[in-house]
Amino acid sequence: MQPENKHTISVLVSNHFGVLAKVSGMFSARGFNINSLCVGETENPEVSRMTVVVRGDHSVLAQLIQQLNKLVDVIEIQDLTQESFVERELVMIKVNAGQEQRGAVIEVASIFRAKIVDVGQHCMTIEVTGAEGKIRACIDMMRAFGIAELVRSGEIAISRAAK
Amino acid sequence: MQPENKHTISVLVSNHFGVLAKVSGMFSARGFNINSLCVGETENPEVSRMTVVVRGDHSVLAQLIQQLNKLVDVIEIQDLTQESFVERELVMIKVNAGQEQRGAVIEVASIFRAKIVDVGQHCMTIEVTGAEGKIRACIDMMRAFGIAELVRSGEIAISRAAK
Repeated sequence: MQPENKHTISVLVSNHFGVLAKVSGMFSARGFNINSLCVGETENPEVSRMTVVVRGDHSVLAQLIQQLNKLVDVIEIQDLTQESFVERELVMIKVNAGQEQRGAVIEVASIFRAKIVDVGQHCMTIEVTGAEGKIRACIDMMRAFGIAELVRSGEIAISRAAK
Repeated sequence: MQPENKHTISVLVSNHFGVLAKVSGMFSARGFNINSLCVGETENPEVSRMTVVVRGDHSVLAQLIQQLNKLVDVIEIQDLTQESFVERELVMIKVNAGQEQRGAVIEVASIFRAKIVDVGQHCMTIEVTGAEGKIRACIDMMRAFGIAELVRSGEIAISRAAK
């Protein structure tokens, strides 16, 4: 399901100063441009999980993963692309929509099971979650109304139950 | 609505190598531990938006924002905490739940308008979005089943229509 050279990397790190800068610096030093990155706390407040999406050469990435593994603050690192996983992204889209367009925006939103999270005289904000393809389709449809602002969380991923 | 010293910073950056490491490095150099961070593309593929949540002193943060503003790759930076905004986070939670617990997990999920995104013989994965308080409440409820894995996107935020 993944475009050939897209990799989703999940990294468990200690919640220390500067770990994020160090890890993201190692990606850019190796010439990987980070497509998206998320960092959030886990159940253990001393541990954070980073989800990094990069596109690039598989063997260079395998080397980088080995190097990252040697960092004291890196607890665990997985290239989820190697296994079966669920990927999701959260996006908020503010579109230009006055009273006349509201119905049409709600219609499109409901098709994508998106939620309306804010409304004003001249704009509406929707929230949508999904994998890459659905998000792209939803943004494309919303473009017709005129997108005023767009915020993406970047992808998070979790391994599937059945291996 | 925000705990006293929590700040949600939205940064528009050029999509260049190393910008992420530079910006996150400046936060840690100033002693801010980043609670969560999201980076994703915007409508313009040359521009990414970072949403950074930090806790700390307001005046030190104001200085840091001035410094970040001077970076060539920083296009715009806003402390959303100063205005009215919508905050949302995406979380996936894998809980230990066999056949007997499935109904109970679905019940709790539906109360939080969470979606079941994966199921196996001994576990289920749910996806939930919301602001900090709702996410915390949902995680607390899921803890009863036993949390096997938890991935958080970190918070994204968008300013409200009505100023």
